[in-house]
Amino acid sequence: MSSKVGSFPFHIQSYMCDFQGRAPMPLLGGMILHAASRHAHERGFGYEHISRDGVAWVLTKMAIEWLEPPHRDQSLTIETWVEAVARFYTQRCFRFLGEQGQPIGYARSVWVALNMETRRPVNIPSWRPDIADYVCEETECPIARMKKIPAGTPDGVSARDYTVGYSDIDINGHLNSVKYIEHSLDVFDLSEYREKAIRRFEITYLAEGYFGDALRLTRHDLSEDETVVETLRGSEAICRCRLVWG
Amino acid sequence: MSSKVGSFPFHIQSYMCDFQGRAPMPLLGGMILHAASRHAHERGFGYEHISRDGVAWVLTKMAIEWLEPPHRDQSLTIETWVEAVARFYTQRCFRFLGEQGQPIGYARSVWVALNMETRRPVNIPSWRPDIADYVCEETECPIARMKKIPAGTPDGVSARDYTVGYSDIDINGHLNSVKYIEHSLDVFDLSEYREKAIRRFEITYLAEGYFGDALRLTRHDLSEDETVVETLRGSEAICRCRLVWG
Repeated sequence: MSSKVGSFPFHIQSYMCDFQGRAPMPLLGGMILHAASRHAHERGFGYEHISRDGVAWVLTKMAIEWLEPPHRDQSLTIETWVEAVARFYTQRCFRFLGEQGQPIGYARSVWVALNMETRRPVNIPSWRPDIADYVCEETECPIARMKKIPAGTPDGVSARDYTVGYSDIDINGHLNSVKYIEHSLDVFDLSEYREKAIRRFEITYLAEGYFGDALRLTRHDLSEDETVVETLRGSEAICRCRLVWG
Repeated sequence: MSSKVGSFPFHIQSYMCDFQGRAPMPLLGGMILHAASRHAHERGFGYEHISRDGVAWVLTKMAIEWLEPPHRDQSLTIETWVEAVARFYTQRCFRFLGEQGQPIGYARSVWVALNMETRRPVNIPSWRPDIADYVCEETECPIARMKKIPAGTPDGVSARDYTVGYSDIDINGHLNSVKYIEHSLDVFDLSEYREKAIRRFEITYLAEGYFGDALRLTRHDLSEDETVVETLRGSEAICRCRLVWG
């Protein structure tokens, strides 16, 4: 059996960075998905393996916290492990290590195993009891679990319209998990990114987005350091993000 | 001195793929930029080195051709080398090797060294005569050089509007080179990607895009297997792409 914790090296290239030379949240989200995908693959429950059962992992929630945001030309390592297997979801944690091996951030995520035909969650312990063998309780993920993200008030501070295109669609035919993050962050002006940094980022996926969907991203400032961004399709929220600024 | 040809391995993960399980053109463009950036860095003329002189490499043109588009779970290697150093630009070539080392595609690119203060091209042979030492004439890039991409007719077949946001802006404060590709490809319907594949993709960058720019992407079908996509800011074309379908 492979070890419970997987470890994946990354390097932040200049061309991947935002205008401040930092690794933007969608890039970090992509790295997290990469680490999760490789960890599962190396242990026999990756995309390839479970698609034979007509099942796919679907990310439903994620929270990311940084002590210092990674920046250009920096190397980092993402460690990931399964923290818990519940009946209908698994909890996966991440720890980010800087160049000297010091922790620089953490993330938590919740995944559902979806039956691709019925679109219903699979009972994980009966379908794949072996996944519980990888549950790791030794490594610590000291960031708060996610709470429910409140719905936005009817009128947001500002809104941005976006129609889902080819580049937004993933291999399952849905709006890509990373693209929800990208579009949500585009409601902010560059001046805001200059003045403050995202200390904690939370996302809840509520419904699948499809090609051609006309989306409206609305922004709701709960306080000076807390903002909710809602992705609406008509009156339906398909995604909510909560940002804590520091 | 390092060898003239740099070689960089990549692996196409499922989560990076488009709805058909293929590596989308913006991903390949990103890998090409990564290979170019590392190749230059390892030879002392990367972003880090030249920014000390107040200079940045700016991609002005690129052409990519695939024999077979890379798909999920495939490994590939990108080789890159400098083909020629002219007074005000360099030509860089790429060869893509599949898992058995067989060539599966090629790319050509043209780069200007821009003085970041004056925004004018630097005379490369006088500024950095050493770059010419890396010119490699032994490796072959058998795809056609780029021709001028014709301007679109006033009325395109269809148009898509897009406002440049935070996620589009690169470390130099401009619309990211890969994002031009992404937005250009979003003028097509999924049904078109199902029916045919991009055999050759060309892009010419005409002007820098900025945060908040209101862009209109217009599509012009020159024939059944050739399309031009123009990125307009008002009446000014800031980018043109030419796609040859196969």
